[in-house]
Amino acid sequence: MDLPQELKAIDEIRQLKSRYFRFVDTKDWQQLAMVFCRDAIFDTRQASGLASTADDENYVARGRDAIVAYISQSLQGSSSVHHGHGHEVHIDSADEAHGIVAMEDLVKWEAPRRASLHGYGHYHELYRVEDGAWRLWRSTLTRLRVETDLDMGGTG
Amino acid sequence: MDLPQELKAIDEIRQLKSRYFRFVDTKDWQQLAMVFCRDAIFDTRQASGLASTADDENYVARGRDAIVAYISQSLQGSSSVHHGHGHEVHIDSADEAHGIVAMEDLVKWEAPRRASLHGYGHYHELYRVEDGAWRLWRSTLTRLRVETDLDMGGTG
Amino acid sequence: MDLPQELKAIDEIRQLKSRYFRFVDTKDWQQLAMVFCRDAIFDTRQASGLASTADDENYVARGRDAIVAYISQSLQGSSSVHHGHGHEVHIDSADEAHGIVAMEDLVKWEAPRRASLHGYGHYHELYRVEDGAWRLWRSTLTRLRVETDLDMGGTG
Repeated sequence: MDLPQELKAIDEIRQLKSRYFRFVDTKDWQQLAMVFCRDAIFDTRQASGLASTADDENYVARGRDAIVAYISQSLQGSSSVHHGHGHEVHIDSADEAHGIVAMEDLVKWEAPRRASLHGYGHYHELYRVEDGAWRLWRSTLTRLRVETDLDMGGTG
Repeated sequence: MDLPQELKAIDEIRQLKSRYFRFVDTKDWQQLAMVFCRDAIFDTRQASGLASTADDENYVARGRDAIVAYISQSLQGSSSVHHGHGHEVHIDSADEAHGIVAMEDLVKWEAPRRASLHGYGHYHELYRVEDGAWRLWRSTLTRLRVETDLDMGGTG
Repeated sequence: MDLPQELKAIDEIRQLKSRYFRFVDTKDWQQLAMVFCRDAIFDTRQASGLASTADDENYVARGRDAIVAYISQSLQGSSSVHHGHGHEVHIDSADEAHGIVAMEDLVKWEAPRRASLHGYGHYHELYRVEDGAWRLWRSTLTRLRVETDLDMGGTG
């Protein structure tokens, strides 16, 4: 891989992650699936702000379909904003790369009960070329801070 | 256009949009004008968070001078913060490109009345080379969420 | 410097600044030091939101070690989030560059007293190659807006 190809790969991986954020917030689950490798792993055990989830396998989604199901269910009844900042990407070979991207997420659920989450953290990720395009292979979310507002009265 | 030139064009368009955000918030209207093509169109019909503006031509500015007048009038008496995130850019030819960039804006007006807007959305854009530099040719803002706080008591 | 090398330098400087933000928020002071040139200058005289600091040399840290001491002391007892947006970078020679990056910072101190700061602004920066890598040589923070909440009751 020569230098222009390496720079192109870095850019493709950044645009990949930008599509991830966009498809999550526009709830375009079909396109979101294609951001991930078929056997991708999405690990949010450290992302809830609750110590109780740190070892909970329910917070690890394995495989493209399970990941999209997990994300779409988590955001059901909500409007969400997810932003990425300062994506560090390193190309390890022609079809493998790793990176870290800072993130902020704001989720407001209206149903079945009103609640909100405002979080800050980092995605630690591995990327692979599959079916001719860079895709997310491993994604683990760590947190700097999570603020939650759970209105348990709700409407559910 | 070879690969290094394509990567350079992508970077120039990202820096162009970064200048857009910076000149808006530092209220540098003279430099903001040069970010746009002379016949640019800036469409914020879906950006107010109000259904009533969706078909309102007053929310479409046509031409560089009209765009700068529209933005500067909108932000008069305010301090503002506009940030872009995850700019996806695709080069279509040596002088045409398209892209999407996530955004967050925070505007606080002190006069003539106190009010604030905190919004999240995406700019959907076309870019063209004009007078030797990439510039914004079409920019349409869609919203994920807008929170407004209108204090109609004001001082005006 | 040919075009691919210039693009690589731009990317390295962006990743440098991304590491700066990440090491600040993860409080990795050892790695943060290496982001800076040995004789770097970090100027936050305009960053406090207080007019009284504008000419105060205590808000200028000179040298890598002084900078890390300054930042780590400022953030002691806090959790912090610092994000960069739209990093404009221009390469001036094989080992000199300049740039501007928009920023948002959120700092919440728990001890010795509760307080918080939520700010928005721009870093105006110079970069140099030192010991074989791009590093921050000059960094001056200007502000668009700072919101502070000082609970002087505290626990200290």
